[in-house]
Amino acid sequence: MEFDLVVKNGLIVTASEILPPGLEIGIKDGKITCLGTSLPVSSSTKILDAEGAYITPGGIDSHVHLAQDNCPTGDGWESGTRSAIAGGTTTVIAFASQERHHSSLFPVLAAYHAKAAGQAYSDYSFHFILTNPTSHILTTELPRLATDEGITSVKLYMTYEPMQLSDRALLEIMLACRALGMTTMIHAENADMIALIIAGLEARGNLAPFFHAVARPRIAEDEASYRAISLAELVDAPMLLVHMSSETAMQHVRSAQDRLLPVHAETCPHYLYLISETLREQPHDHFHGAKHVCSPPLRHRVGDLEALWRGVANGTFTTWSSDHAPSKYDHPQGKKAGLKDGVMSFKTIPNGLPGIETRMALLFAATEACLPAAEARLGLPRFVQLTASNAARMYGLGGKKGSIAPGYDADLVIWYPKGRGETVVSNGMLHHDMDYTPFEGLKVGNWPRYTILRGQVVWDRDNGGVVGEKGYGEYMKRGKGEVIVGKVGQPVHGMLENERQFWMNP
Amino acid sequence: MEFDLVVKNGLIVTASEILPPGLEIGIKDGKITCLGTSLPVSSSTKILDAEGAYITPGGIDSHVHLAQDNCPTGDGWESGTRSAIAGGTTTVIAFASQERHHSSLFPVLAAYHAKAAGQAYSDYSFHFILTNPTSHILTTELPRLATDEGITSVKLYMTYEPMQLSDRALLEIMLACRALGMTTMIHAENADMIALIIAGLEARGNLAPFFHAVARPRIAEDEASYRAISLAELVDAPMLLVHMSSETAMQHVRSAQDRLLPVHAETCPHYLYLISETLREQPHDHFHGAKHVCSPPLRHRVGDLEALWRGVANGTFTTWSSDHAPSKYDHPQGKKAGLKDGVMSFKTIPNGLPGIETRMALLFAATEACLPAAEARLGLPRFVQLTASNAARMYGLGGKKGSIAPGYDADLVIWYPKGRGETVVSNGMLHHDMDYTPFEGLKVGNWPRYTILRGQVVWDRDNGGVVGEKGYGEYMKRGKGEVIVGKVGQPVHGMLENERQFWMNP
Amino acid sequence: MEFDLVVKNGLIVTASEILPPGLEIGIKDGKITCLGTSLPVSSSTKILDAEGAYITPGGIDSHVHLAQDNCPTGDGWESGTRSAIAGGTTTVIAFASQERHHSSLFPVLAAYHAKAAGQAYSDYSFHFILTNPTSHILTTELPRLATDEGITSVKLYMTYEPMQLSDRALLEIMLACRALGMTTMIHAENADMIALIIAGLEARGNLAPFFHAVARPRIAEDEASYRAISLAELVDAPMLLVHMSSETAMQHVRSAQDRLLPVHAETCPHYLYLISETLREQPHDHFHGAKHVCSPPLRHRVGDLEALWRGVANGTFTTWSSDHAPSKYDHPQGKKAGLKDGVMSFKTIPNGLPGIETRMALLFAATEACLPAAEARLGLPRFVQLTASNAARMYGLGGKKGSIAPGYDADLVIWYPKGRGETVVSNGMLHHDMDYTPFEGLKVGNWPRYTILRGQVVWDRDNGGVVGEKGYGEYMKRGKGEVIVGKVGQPVHGMLENERQFWMNP
Amino acid sequence: MEFDLVVKNGLIVTASEILPPGLEIGIKDGKITCLGTSLPVSSSTKILDAEGAYITPGGIDSHVHLAQDNCPTGDGWESGTRSAIAGGTTTVIAFASQERHHSSLFPVLAAYHAKAAGQAYSDYSFHFILTNPTSHILTTELPRLATDEGITSVKLYMTYEPMQLSDRALLEIMLACRALGMTTMIHAENADMIALIIAGLEARGNLAPFFHAVARPRIAEDEASYRAISLAELVDAPMLLVHMSSETAMQHVRSAQDRLLPVHAETCPHYLYLISETLREQPHDHFHGAKHVCSPPLRHRVGDLEALWRGVANGTFTTWSSDHAPSKYDHPQGKKAGLKDGVMSFKTIPNGLPGIETRMALLFAATEACLPAAEARLGLPRFVQLTASNAARMYGLGGKKGSIAPGYDADLVIWYPKGRGETVVSNGMLHHDMDYTPFEGLKVGNWPRYTILRGQVVWDRDNGGVVGEKGYGEYMKRGKGEVIVGKVGQPVHGMLENERQFWMNP
Repeated sequence: MEFDLVVKNGLIVTASEILPPGLEIGIKDGKITCLGTSLPVSSSTKILDAEGAYITPGGIDSHVHLAQDNCPTGDGWESGTRSAIAGGTTTVIAFASQERHHSSLFPVLAAYHAKAAGQAYSDYSFHFILTNPTSHILTTELPRLATDEGITSVKLYMTYEPMQLSDRALLEIMLACRALGMTTMIHAENADMIALIIAGLEARGNLAPFFHAVARPRIAEDEASYRAISLAELVDAPMLLVHMSSETAMQHVRSAQDRLLPVHAETCPHYLYLISETLREQPHDHFHGAKHVCSPPLRHRVGDLEALWRGVANGTFTTWSSDHAPSKYDHPQGKKAGLKDGVMSFKTIPNGLPGIETRMALLFAATEACLPAAEARLGLPRFVQLTASNAARMYGLGGKKGSIAPGYDADLVIWYPKGRGETVVSNGMLHHDMDYTPFEGLKVGNWPRYTILRGQVVWDRDNGGVVGEKGYGEYMKRGKGEVIVGKVGQPVHGMLENERQFWMNP
Repeated sequence: MEFDLVVKNGLIVTASEILPPGLEIGIKDGKITCLGTSLPVSSSTKILDAEGAYITPGGIDSHVHLAQDNCPTGDGWESGTRSAIAGGTTTVIAFASQERHHSSLFPVLAAYHAKAAGQAYSDYSFHFILTNPTSHILTTELPRLATDEGITSVKLYMTYEPMQLSDRALLEIMLACRALGMTTMIHAENADMIALIIAGLEARGNLAPFFHAVARPRIAEDEASYRAISLAELVDAPMLLVHMSSETAMQHVRSAQDRLLPVHAETCPHYLYLISETLREQPHDHFHGAKHVCSPPLRHRVGDLEALWRGVANGTFTTWSSDHAPSKYDHPQGKKAGLKDGVMSFKTIPNGLPGIETRMALLFAATEACLPAAEARLGLPRFVQLTASNAARMYGLGGKKGSIAPGYDADLVIWYPKGRGETVVSNGMLHHDMDYTPFEGLKVGNWPRYTILRGQVVWDRDNGGVVGEKGYGEYMKRGKGEVIVGKVGQPVHGMLENERQFWMNP
Repeated sequence: MEFDLVVKNGLIVTASEILPPGLEIGIKDGKITCLGTSLPVSSSTKILDAEGAYITPGGIDSHVHLAQDNCPTGDGWESGTRSAIAGGTTTVIAFASQERHHSSLFPVLAAYHAKAAGQAYSDYSFHFILTNPTSHILTTELPRLATDEGITSVKLYMTYEPMQLSDRALLEIMLACRALGMTTMIHAENADMIALIIAGLEARGNLAPFFHAVARPRIAEDEASYRAISLAELVDAPMLLVHMSSETAMQHVRSAQDRLLPVHAETCPHYLYLISETLREQPHDHFHGAKHVCSPPLRHRVGDLEALWRGVANGTFTTWSSDHAPSKYDHPQGKKAGLKDGVMSFKTIPNGLPGIETRMALLFAATEACLPAAEARLGLPRFVQLTASNAARMYGLGGKKGSIAPGYDADLVIWYPKGRGETVVSNGMLHHDMDYTPFEGLKVGNWPRYTILRGQVVWDRDNGGVVGEKGYGEYMKRGKGEVIVGKVGQPVHGMLENERQFWMNP
Repeated sequence: MEFDLVVKNGLIVTASEILPPGLEIGIKDGKITCLGTSLPVSSSTKILDAEGAYITPGGIDSHVHLAQDNCPTGDGWESGTRSAIAGGTTTVIAFASQERHHSSLFPVLAAYHAKAAGQAYSDYSFHFILTNPTSHILTTELPRLATDEGITSVKLYMTYEPMQLSDRALLEIMLACRALGMTTMIHAENADMIALIIAGLEARGNLAPFFHAVARPRIAEDEASYRAISLAELVDAPMLLVHMSSETAMQHVRSAQDRLLPVHAETCPHYLYLISETLREQPHDHFHGAKHVCSPPLRHRVGDLEALWRGVANGTFTTWSSDHAPSKYDHPQGKKAGLKDGVMSFKTIPNGLPGIETRMALLFAATEACLPAAEARLGLPRFVQLTASNAARMYGLGGKKGSIAPGYDADLVIWYPKGRGETVVSNGMLHHDMDYTPFEGLKVGNWPRYTILRGQVVWDRDNGGVVGEKGYGEYMKRGKGEVIVGKVGQPVHGMLENERQFWMNP
């Protein structure tokens, strides 16, 4: 019973409660080995005094884009994961991305591994984006991906011409993933609706950044979300809808959850804090709105934000991710790609916002730890679920990441003690490689004081900032994910019992 | 004030009430010219005594397939319209059908006109099935179709490989039709779901007729219906979902109607009377179920029927059509096309049921005219709406067809007086050119005693049967249809006011 | 075929359609006897040229309070019915009201009859308000009321201390009415909620007129409406919720209607045009808001109005009534009863607004006859349903009142021809005995040009105004009402089939 | 770091996860002081080997009736709490019950304390049943009850003549409890509906036990639940609906939870396992159904059970309680009170079932620990929430009871290791003082092997059975409860922001 590090004097938050005060966390060889009181210390034991602060599990950001080919001015692994740990995130799951012409996933994966190797400040893993789900890939490569590479989730697009999959392809992938216990993540927007609107906007010369928010209306997300849920229901496959931004789509999810369908949902900080007004031109910079171009777009009304906050609170959403997919603003291959010779076109503005570093603080700021009870949006256990524990369990890191309990990796965020830590977000304080943050000027009630990754302090805000080392982050092979919401095997309205057995495997 | 025909002693039913007893209908030159009491008669006036019977408007069957190329053993115009008038239907709207390779609709229409010319016992019109909506057709031909040919409705398919349209195509057609005041009819089933299931059924050798009902589950209709409604909502276009068979899809319609979206719905007698059990093999004839193969398929449970009856009663459904699309059973190009060398395959069974003649009686049988109040499904005014007046208004025949009032064509159905007319349906009594009826043996509480078309008795059940003449039926040029349910111009959830103006015409 | 009056050149509107132009209405002995073209005229036939105007059935206002004891400054029969015909209403149903101490209804009724006799300009009937439903009254008097007196509807209160009934009493009355085919009308607000709030308002001195709107929040109506529907569902009794003002309560009704429960709903013009802002004090008159005190109160937001308009359009509401229950404003027993010695108290302001004369025009103004299609709230057939035909059928006047068809009383409203008739409402133009109208200054698109009651012109706006005679109005004995929405005999969630038979009569 | 007891080799289940294997629980002075691996042991440390079994928190049964005056043949404290620990329940919350004539709660409480003193095998606390909420009690006694006596919850009845409260009384109590942070528990059934039905049943001689299930239909619960939620919403008071049995009522709860209202719900094992069929007479014993008489009654259909299981799984229900309120069957003051001289009357059968001992096993049996994933109704963390942690937090025992973490009382249930523990329930094995169990013959997949209360083994199934001592159980003063679901301060539909401030305190 020896410890390398003992964290004392904190208030430990789990996914279900705030543990009684006075508990200490004993850490050995990068793992939590003990929760108790008056833990024995030796000369080699470091002591970290939390000063009464809340301690939450290290954040897991399950939706980030790093060093992705289609995003030339985005963050790479070094700046991206540096930004992560400075914001309290200790594990990121990024994307390896098949292009249509790739007939095998493994060379693609090797290239993505190569870019990450030795660069990461945080632990990391990959989802695989599938754009060409050949039979070979589904039957031969996916099983190896899961077993050998620890990649147990795929992301699929219902929109974007280079990635869009047909309903049939979605179904085939869902079936393959279901058999392997893999998780399916879906970007749900109706591509044809969007194409029609864009054609209409173009024909009328409506191409300023704001029209990006017109081009992808909520109903495009609502329809595609309902369709994706229906497809998953048909083949009894668990799934997650990524970056949800529409109340109606969220209600589709809730309604599915009521029926115990294994339908999960993700949302992102920008959909809870920002509205489309921010895409409008500004007096000093007509193109300013390009900074807020992402898909789905920011919605029009404060009421949209309110509705999504309800889903954050009532359990509809499973994860709170950044969808960090930034491009530099003032760069000809960045956001300014949408501005040629003084002519704006939202069509050529790269999609995506930076957010990996602000993610944790933006949700913590909405908890009862920072706001009076009547104004708080959620409790701290729900914060833990959304930022860490659900993603861990859902993506096959359960038992290793996402909880503060013996047996888990010692990944911790220690927040400033009560009354300290209030922060005004500014791009200057962030550690990504971007020239703006969409949350500039936003005041948040707290910020991580320390981030600890496998027992090492990697972020010490008052004393050195990023103190972890590049390359300390490890690649995580993941196991099969858990179903967090609902369960498989639910009957489909109108079907006979066991009707599926006539045409699919059990 | 002279009349060719006076119908007296009937109970006239309108779309809103049963008029007081004692009214007479005065008819001159094929039109109703007077409703009153003690109408003057001259020597040339014929008198028809209704003997206290209910009189309803001549039926309008707005969904029938006659002489269609892809249905070699179906009814042609002669047998089809003969069957219509014998069942109380005085106007049918059949389909002219574009094939993918047709670059112009007019030669197609000419061919369809040629087949009908001089053959019809009932009045008739055409919807146009679009499968290749080129820009030329949408911008040049549709307007002429509406203006010159009186064809103001198109039918679109979301399923069936030779006809299926993309969401984009649906949207483009809806936009074009909206501008012209044309009505869009949609067959909504998710084609990819169905294809996946069929592949699975085939792989497991599950090919008996019953598996047709497995291959097209309710959820395929539910998803496609929701999608079609979303597409129509986006572009603010009135539409009608044809032959609905699923409670969930119906609820999508109801929910849209609650919000005043102009979403209409059609259902058919077989979805209210028959379940998938009838597709199972029978001891004497393993292939018997083929007789009941139609799409969407018959559903599995009595509860499915109950749910649809609620929609019939509460106003969700706008029209009650036959979807008469029969094939002979015992014919190698008919249903038996699905039975080759003793091997069954539902995939090659022609879809569709006969039903043009039984349509009116099957709904009348469910009214309070035939059943005790506690068992009746609907009242007589609702019967009139569903069988005649709604279709007339919706498809541009308002003011001419579908009502019993001065100014309208004198198209009437006179039912047997109370206590008479009970009928057991058998194929032998029907006037189509088919070798079976799916309703064989069903007892209905009444049957048309007389059918009158433009003032002429064309069906006299007790005295000659079909007494109209082939060729008496006229082609009806239709005007713009009315929106029966909801209204155009409804806001879309989440959109700004007038947001559509950025990308579409008002 | 002789006529006393022929109305020609109008566009006749029924509950389901606008009849083709060119029709004439032949009237004899106070009844419509013929609809036709070129009706024969003799020297004694008067001709009324509608000049192309719409003709709708004479209005039936099924909720008016005249000469009621608890309303000393309200309208009596003379002024009330004079106001009715000037607004296009030819039949009113007023209330005879039992007080708690009345052990028999017949002396009460006699007194009410006495007040009306010889005073009425319009036809009239009575609902009975029950406040003390003894066994004698339920089993002995109600049947006589229905059979002998033609009173086939009762009104019940869930609020107001002098009238409020327990759930048990409501159930007993519903059972009694159900057996007699009588209709139950319910004022649904939760009395205990309101009492609690009023106590809290009083304790804080919040007694200005505006607080009336705070004292009776929507949730009080929502709860009571849900409860009333549940009670009616339990005992399978048709009912109508009067003067609905809340979207949520309306959704309860719609949901019940979806399930085919015979639940009807009424709303009133003030809930569609006015909000609680009008109850606030005005600079020149702090007590001005008292003019707008009614129960349920006016609601707070324009969104409340929008929601109710949807119910007006989509069929949720069955009737559009005035709830004419006015008190003079500047009168110590009128509204000013709430202002004693300069101290305001909403508690002692008499409830109720005048509205009998403006009712028809306020709904007509919202139709496509007055507004462009995109702005119109409803079509003319729906106007007829709401203002006349539904009330006629529901309250046992079917076949006699509420429709324009041979056999019906010749009760007609002829509106000004298109482009004429626009009117700014002012109290000076109205014919009630009140010193204000809540709609002062509202511009409406049309106004009745003529009102015809049983073949007599009683209102001729351009030529004499009220030209009918006091006492021409007749008392109408009513028959059993029809169920307009849904049907009796619906199963209750969770009950066994026929479970009710264990404890109630079929 | 010394321990009295170390439990090793178990799988610890928390409210959010199953902790990694290999963890040991260190216990000192009745409390858990450490979770870790290889905990140090001394000669005085007892070791308990869980043999790989699941370990869950000691059960909290928050709804039991012990030694209650209106239940002469029920369990007293000795037999009741003995039964509790034998079933894995370490804390019970029973009821102290005000009668209408009691003007002070404290003498009542003293009497209840006296009955419990020295008798309990488990820890215990009291809710207070209020039947006469005088101003004195609400303003003076409730605060003392909370502060001095640690009683922070009240139970209120909307039915049962001796206890029933008006809506106004419910509102007043909710307001008082809200100010004190007390929890309101409500028995929601519409008393008037039930009284009407009972009168009808009596009049027709339908009095066999089965008619108890007819007398209290689901709609009575549905209505009252909706009303209770509305009352609580109005005054912004957290509440819990006890022993819910109806899908519709459950949907009302879910819908409230979607809107973040602090509405909690409880259900009981018998509503998930038994249907009304069990109330029918049996050949050998016509009165047998009396054994299953409870209120709300068992529902009619297996579909009712299925619906409630969904609520158990999806989070709608907050607690799983026994509502242990038994009466002996074969006893003239027990169930046989309903059988006098061979004449049955369900009206005089005491309500309530035994269930304190079977509660835990009946839910555990439905988890993935006992059933294949496809058949399991819930996961183990949800089991912990429902049986222990939610009740602890909701009723003010958070931080002390309901979790397995350092700082908490060492209350544990150790289940049989996988593959052992399957049990057929029979009354003979149970430890209550009853002559039957309603679950006789039911096979459950597991049963508590050990129950540990504050570090002491009190139940050792294989070695002595009940090995705790009478009187070891302690009275728990409780603190303020937490809101588990939603939050206070939600806006009410249609109200202005802060409208409540006009009439109630913040």
